[in-house]
Amino acid sequence: MNLNIAVLAGDGIGPEVTQQAIKTLKAVGEVYNHTFTFTEAPVGAIAIDETGDPLPEKTLKLCLDTDAVLFGAIGDPKYDNDPSAKVRPEQGLLKLRKSLGLFTNIRPIKAYPTLIDKSPLKEDRINGTDLTIYRELTGGIYFGEKKLNEEGSVASDLCEYSDYEIERIAHLAFKAARSRRKKLTLVDKANVLETSRLWRKVVTNIGKSYPDVELDFLFVDNAAMQMILNPSQFDVILTENMFGDIISDEGSVIGGSIGLLASASVGDENAMFEPIHGSFPQAKGKDIANPIASILSAAMLLEHFKLYEEAKAINKAVEKALELKIVTSDLNPDSKHTTTKVGDFIADYIA
Amino acid sequence: MNLNIAVLAGDGIGPEVTQQAIKTLKAVGEVYNHTFTFTEAPVGAIAIDETGDPLPEKTLKLCLDTDAVLFGAIGDPKYDNDPSAKVRPEQGLLKLRKSLGLFTNIRPIKAYPTLIDKSPLKEDRINGTDLTIYRELTGGIYFGEKKLNEEGSVASDLCEYSDYEIERIAHLAFKAARSRRKKLTLVDKANVLETSRLWRKVVTNIGKSYPDVELDFLFVDNAAMQMILNPSQFDVILTENMFGDIISDEGSVIGGSIGLLASASVGDENAMFEPIHGSFPQAKGKDIANPIASILSAAMLLEHFKLYEEAKAINKAVEKALELKIVTSDLNPDSKHTTTKVGDFIADYIA
Ligand SMILES: CC(C)[C@H](C(=O)O)[C@@H](O)C(=O)O
Ligand SMILES: CC(C)[C@H](C(=O)O)[C@@H](O)C(=O)O
Repeated sequence: MNLNIAVLAGDGIGPEVTQQAIKTLKAVGEVYNHTFTFTEAPVGAIAIDETGDPLPEKTLKLCLDTDAVLFGAIGDPKYDNDPSAKVRPEQGLLKLRKSLGLFTNIRPIKAYPTLIDKSPLKEDRINGTDLTIYRELTGGIYFGEKKLNEEGSVASDLCEYSDYEIERIAHLAFKAARSRRKKLTLVDKANVLETSRLWRKVVTNIGKSYPDVELDFLFVDNAAMQMILNPSQFDVILTENMFGDIISDEGSVIGGSIGLLASASVGDENAMFEPIHGSFPQAKGKDIANPIASILSAAMLLEHFKLYEEAKAINKAVEKALELKIVTSDLNPDSKHTTTKVGDFIADYIA
Repeated sequence: MNLNIAVLAGDGIGPEVTQQAIKTLKAVGEVYNHTFTFTEAPVGAIAIDETGDPLPEKTLKLCLDTDAVLFGAIGDPKYDNDPSAKVRPEQGLLKLRKSLGLFTNIRPIKAYPTLIDKSPLKEDRINGTDLTIYRELTGGIYFGEKKLNEEGSVASDLCEYSDYEIERIAHLAFKAARSRRKKLTLVDKANVLETSRLWRKVVTNIGKSYPDVELDFLFVDNAAMQMILNPSQFDVILTENMFGDIISDEGSVIGGSIGLLASASVGDENAMFEPIHGSFPQAKGKDIANPIASILSAAMLLEHFKLYEEAKAINKAVEKALELKIVTSDLNPDSKHTTTKVGDFIADYIA
């Protein structure tokens, strides 16, 4: 298979970890006889510095014309505490999601047996956790009209959803549940929000076409508790954009390290793969960041193109690295292994 | 002191647990020579059944004319899965908060040493946790305009905030931080939301009047992680309505039981005190619900009227009950103690 992959490494540790994912994909390409072509382009704070725009036209065009996007991370503290900044790195990511039509963000969360001691949760709570969050990614309050009055004293954000925005992701989530443990939980706040009531109505209707999948509902506040109290109760969680942002980051603590969590963002035409962790500016350039989330995102990319065996090869190599403790210091305080070393090990293991 | 207290016991286990709080307050009244007068009124599903309205005029009038409201719980499953229900119990609670001007919800979260084994978190993570959440309660997406188009295919909720809505709660939160460990964390999503940027701006400005309080900022997705990874880093958390709903319920798992968590909702003229747990319909009428959250809400009521010694007497009695394991089965699976028994013990201990 030939795949053209756009590489948007972005800010902070983005470039370092993405480098390891590329290395891994190259190893897979050699073993399984695929040609992966990588083209880099700027995004985020680094793109603002270069061009004034967090998502330059050329970057967007590359992404639209390519088979898949491998994304690093964006964000720079210099923008975070300046509420009046007109241009922010995050705008690049949001515009990219919207322009590529990436309406579904998929985040698998698993407890790795080798890492159970890293989790803040007790072992009996996390045993058996294997859930996937389907987060709507191009609608809701992220993209609704934003207003600030002239005096700067009244602000608003509109959360809006149409039935078709809910339908398309609901179908993906039901299908995923069907191929897993056949349970779908819709997380919403239907006792307060009109949009949540629409979600409940539409998802209930679609559920009728998936009679083999058990559908249940959870208010988001209760979901935030259940995610910690009893995460193994979940199979597939479906939710809107903002709730998905919060619940999936919360869920990321279960496994003991956010440095292991990958995600896929998919639409009808495009797909993008990125680690869940952010740009972690404090670690930038130190060769200490954990590359595994980025490498596992590359595995999700392969799965997306139905290269299941290839994806499995990456997953196995990662498990081997964890087992042999060829990991960065976030996973093992005694470890002196660098980002590069972990990437090398995983690529070599595949080769 | 003479206090007129409106009792809105509500649905599910609300009446049972509230009864224990009343009992406790009566014991305090006798020991410390105060006259507490209790007047009951319907709210929630039970009020819908009786009058068609989840907050009947008479109930609202009583609350407006009283010194404080003791609230039980509301909610009934028969309304939850009916997105088209025109009247819902929650509307009663929301209207009550709005009509009484209860713009600040205060939720203290502590890890009780006697209950550490109940927590889903490992001991080293929760040791030293002692935080208080200040959640804005009468603004934001809860109360913004809600729309549904005629075809029922597009829904929206407006999240709106004005500077004065942020200022008044920010002052309360800074003052609380000042009397505690002098740290305030604003939780928002300023990298995406216009309202969050207004929060950041206004809170930063107000912070200048509290130079002894350290102010920091956390995106809500990160806060959802930090709450589990390292809850003892927090002193006072300030946040808007919806984020506060999610984060505070999430935080409620730390201590090992939501059955222990009390809250105060205060405004310029009125104050209401309620357990965080909901109506727990499955346990209704069985005399098995944990009354401690409701009893601790009564302690917060006393503190609100500066009856600190009296509040402390309740807190001590609760700690004694925990120590002697005079608790309901949620805290000790072997326990055969009823709701009434726990209430009796606490009241007797005070007397
Ligand atoms: C950077 C930010 C805009 C983004 C989001 O909120 O979607 C991030 O938190 C994420 O979850 O990918
Ligand atoms: C019942 C519901 C409307 C309410 C809320 O979301 O505010 C509850 O969850 C709470 O936190 O008091």
